Amino acid sequence: MEKVALGIDLGGTAIKFAAVTETGNIIATHHAPTEAEHGLEHVIENMMRGIAELIAQTKSVELSGIGIGVPGVVSLDGGTVSHPPNLPGWEVVRLGDAIAEKFRQVYGATKPVFVENDANLAALGEARFGAGTALNDFIMITLGTGIGAGIIINRKIFRGTTGAAGEFGHIPIDYNSETAHAGIHGSVEGFIGQRHIAEYARKLAKNHPDSLLHQLCPDLSQLEPKHITAAAEQGDPLALAIWQWVAEILGAGLGAIVSILDIRKFVIGGGVAGAGKYLFEPCLGALKRFTLSSMHEGIELLPAKLGNQAGVMGAAAQAL
Amino acid sequence: MEKVALGIDLGGTAIKFAAVTETGNIIATHHAPTEAEHGLEHVIENMMRGIAELIAQTKSVELSGIGIGVPGVVSLDGGTVSHPPNLPGWEVVRLGDAIAEKFRQVYGATKPVFVENDANLAALGEARFGAGTALNDFIMITLGTGIGAGIIINRKIFRGTTGAAGEFGHIPIDYNSETAHAGIHGSVEGFIGQRHIAEYARKLAKNHPDSLLHQLCPDLSQLEPKHITAAAEQGDPLALAIWQWVAEILGAGLGAIVSILDIRKFVIGGGVAGAGKYLFEPCLGALKRFTLSSMHEGIELLPAKLGNQAGVMGAAAQAL
Repeated sequence: MEKVALGIDLGGTAIKFAAVTETGNIIATHHAPTEAEHGLEHVIENMMRGIAELIAQTKSVELSGIGIGVPGVVSLDGGTVSHPPNLPGWEVVRLGDAIAEKFRQVYGATKPVFVENDANLAALGEARFGAGTALNDFIMITLGTGIGAGIIINRKIFRGTTGAAGEFGHIPIDYNSETAHAGIHGSVEGFIGQRHIAEYARKLAKNHPDSLLHQLCPDLSQLEPKHITAAAEQGDPLALAIWQWVAEILGAGLGAIVSILDIRKFVIGGGVAGAGKYLFEPCLGALKRFTLSSMHEGIELLPAKLGNQAGVMGAAAQAL
Repeated sequence: MEKVALGIDLGGTAIKFAAVTETGNIIATHHAPTEAEHGLEHVIENMMRGIAELIAQTKSVELSGIGIGVPGVVSLDGGTVSHPPNLPGWEVVRLGDAIAEKFRQVYGATKPVFVENDANLAALGEARFGAGTALNDFIMITLGTGIGAGIIINRKIFRGTTGAAGEFGHIPIDYNSETAHAGIHGSVEGFIGQRHIAEYARKLAKNHPDSLLHQLCPDLSQLEPKHITAAAEQGDPLALAIWQWVAEILGAGLGAIVSILDIRKFVIGGGVAGAGKYLFEPCLGALKRFTLSSMHEGIELLPAKLGNQAGVMGAAAQAL
């Protein structure tokens, strides 16, 4: 019988659940609000209800274990969550032990529970089931409101000394910049986090009344990356230039990774990655300009394959 | 009997040799010109003569093996050197096999020979015998004409996918800069490689006729970092400001490493590190400004301990 693991992606507003086989088939899913404002115990109950739902849907399988992705730093023992953002009142929580104990009480069986940072699990999901299955080493970059990285070395998550590796969005690529984001001047995320791209595009659009952006999003305060991509698809020069600018900054940041780690494969996901070739092609060019030519061989930017399932699939992979 | 390994540091102009015990005692040394212009065979002969010299000096020891540090990229099999800079005509050389075979011919014994990039071996030397002996993970930064890094993770060299990891000097920290170095705009080395520091200091000194730099180095074309340090020791404001500027750029670059890898310990060596506290103190401040405050705990900048012995000691460590 094929092994199955439960993957849980615990976000600030929603919890995603999936039962995943070792070949990557999702055989059951569930979705529930986090209701973090009701506190830790309530969230754990919501998680247990989701687990019950998956188990009801997948009765006759051999359950390997449970993997849980959480925002923030997870201790190296793989079970303790420290001060997760968006989960108020959590402080330091031994989440792995708590779920394992509840599970034992309810089902009379002991199953291993693994807790891991969600960006790391998204990377592991792509490694095991997505764009990274052929790669020993790669970096998963998630481009959204925040910009994060998950580092896969020898097909395993690399976590750094304390478990906080992958804060790619905060590296400075313009140290002299006057603007700071999260306290850091000239960081990648401060330029090309989703909101900053929109802000940059709004500013430029005001000086380009002929840009298609005005037709695609008449209320510029609502401008999102998808509008810029839609305009780029129609050849709008301003939209193309905006993605070129994003690509330049992303390429400089990825260049730092290539130079430091000599890891040359990137799997790129997150909402902003929806720009596709308008971002990927100029970014590859920029990345090569920001690295030694002796390190160009094998450089690749690959679109993520699992979309917003990467988290639950990575969580399950951790438990398989 | 204590084990001994031979460490060889093969540079473009000189070859250093040392016999090192497993507790880090250097019991014999030798030094010879590389004479790279006479070609590969000649360099290998020079290496064999140095090995003979060490063996003559250390007759009654148990020899574990031979470690060799070379400039450039060494293949992951640990024996093949590709296109080392400053060793003309080398192309791709199976140096480990060549030395092992010569050794067998001369001494009738088979000893393992390990070949590794010299910056990586300097890091390993500091890990085993120097400033990093208490650290599981750290980055060794060498500040000289070039700026390189050796990455130690779990007390081992981290080499990246192809063996080229650690090109720290080439990361962009000012992507929009108009000046390029080794083809890369706004790279760390392009600002604070030794020659660039001197150039920057010369420019400023011309506008500061009262700076002590003029007394300490009347011919500004000869200005070196040691003069700037000597002036800083006497409280010269210009010299202090120059080190502050170097520290800012170095701090931004180290910040990128901390954010990506969550490795927070740095061992800093090379000629420019001779600036000591004039560089280290402002650099620590800058590094903290360029990283999230959640990642500040445990950040440390440590001066390298082995000086220019790090290479031979690391080479020996690799073979012990």
